[in-house]
Amino acid sequence: MQRHIDDVAVDRQRKLPGSLIFSNEDVDDAAHRVLHELTGIKKMVLKQFKCFADPLRASNQTDIMWMGTEYMHNIDRIITVAYLSLCKIDQKINSTKYETVDWYPIDQVPALPFDHNKIINESLTEIRRWIETDFSIIFELLPKKFTIRQLYQLYSALSEKQIDIKNFHKKISSFNYIIPLEEIEKNVSHRAARYYRFDAKIYKKNNTRLIK
Amino acid sequence: MQRHIDDVAVDRQRKLPGSLIFSNEDVDDAAHRVLHELTGIKKMVLKQFKCFADPLRASNQTDIMWMGTEYMHNIDRIITVAYLSLCKIDQKINSTKYETVDWYPIDQVPALPFDHNKIINESLTEIRRWIETDFSIIFELLPKKFTIRQLYQLYSALSEKQIDIKNFHKKISSFNYIIPLEEIEKNVSHRAARYYRFDAKIYKKNNTRLIK
Repeated sequence: MQRHIDDVAVDRQRKLPGSLIFSNEDVDDAAHRVLHELTGIKKMVLKQFKCFADPLRASNQTDIMWMGTEYMHNIDRIITVAYLSLCKIDQKINSTKYETVDWYPIDQVPALPFDHNKIINESLTEIRRWIETDFSIIFELLPKKFTIRQLYQLYSALSEKQIDIKNFHKKISSFNYIIPLEEIEKNVSHRAARYYRFDAKIYKKNNTRLIK
Repeated sequence: MQRHIDDVAVDRQRKLPGSLIFSNEDVDDAAHRVLHELTGIKKMVLKQFKCFADPLRASNQTDIMWMGTEYMHNIDRIITVAYLSLCKIDQKINSTKYETVDWYPIDQVPALPFDHNKIINESLTEIRRWIETDFSIIFELLPKKFTIRQLYQLYSALSEKQIDIKNFHKKISSFNYIIPLEEIEKNVSHRAARYYRFDAKIYKKNNTRLIK
């Protein structure tokens, strides 16, 4: 989850990043442009997620003022096409346009303007759905080498239910596509944990299509 | 796949159904309105699929003329939010607005205006993806009682690969959630086939979530 404090904004409230599309621009191109301006990342799989078009989504006076200043247009109504991307936790940010772009833990998201909290909540539900239908997607969010604790923390953040860490460990150790490495954590205050990697080939073998 | 011949159009070419949204209308509401005007159906699960926004998608002169006549607006650019719905094959159509709404077999879709052929192709890919991740979705398209031939024809229409009917039969008979009924087809010219039904409870039991 990423957003920026806009420097010219009436207040310095955080927002999800976005932009009006140019008149000769496709929405997919606009999404990639915004991503690049925000993070310096040029290539990344962006999945169009949902179009938010509630007529009252930008009816708050502060939001209307902010739009007027930011976009220099008198805007009647704004429709947002939201995109999702899965990005490794250790991905660096190098914004070419904003100074105050930052990652935020999902459980520390403040009250946001417009319907941005709604967009985040619906995005989480969507990502949960992805991971339930294809568990391998979770490894796109982790570094290449990860500890079971990291996997557990990520899975817990995405799950609605509490999961017992012991049961989680047991379940995970039954997955032959999660491979233990001959390497443990360094410079940690807690007991150093073993690193693991995800084997996509083994995963695919186990999860073939229903009818071939 | 559904479209109508528009009576006031410059030509009587077929199109995917659609409408401009009203200024105080959410896109979801607009989609339900269009569905109702077209089919008489008031309640149906409509899934927002994708926003089509290529700046050149409506640059053909015939298409621009048609938009002018149909919408009585001088339209610069049109962005379409496409919706998908799974609907039983035997669903009746009872349009309140158009006289020429009709179902079309997917392999007989003619050349359509705008990017409507592209929308249909991408929709098919999406529905294939749904069925690959959750096979039970296919039964939402079939009548409650169906023959294996009907299931085979539907699966074949959705698949990119040719599937051998014998292998298909074999595979299907190994699925304990497809239940044979004590009833066979009536008044058919070919050999009467047995009817089957889909048991959602058994299916769910077999396809539980990965980590609980």
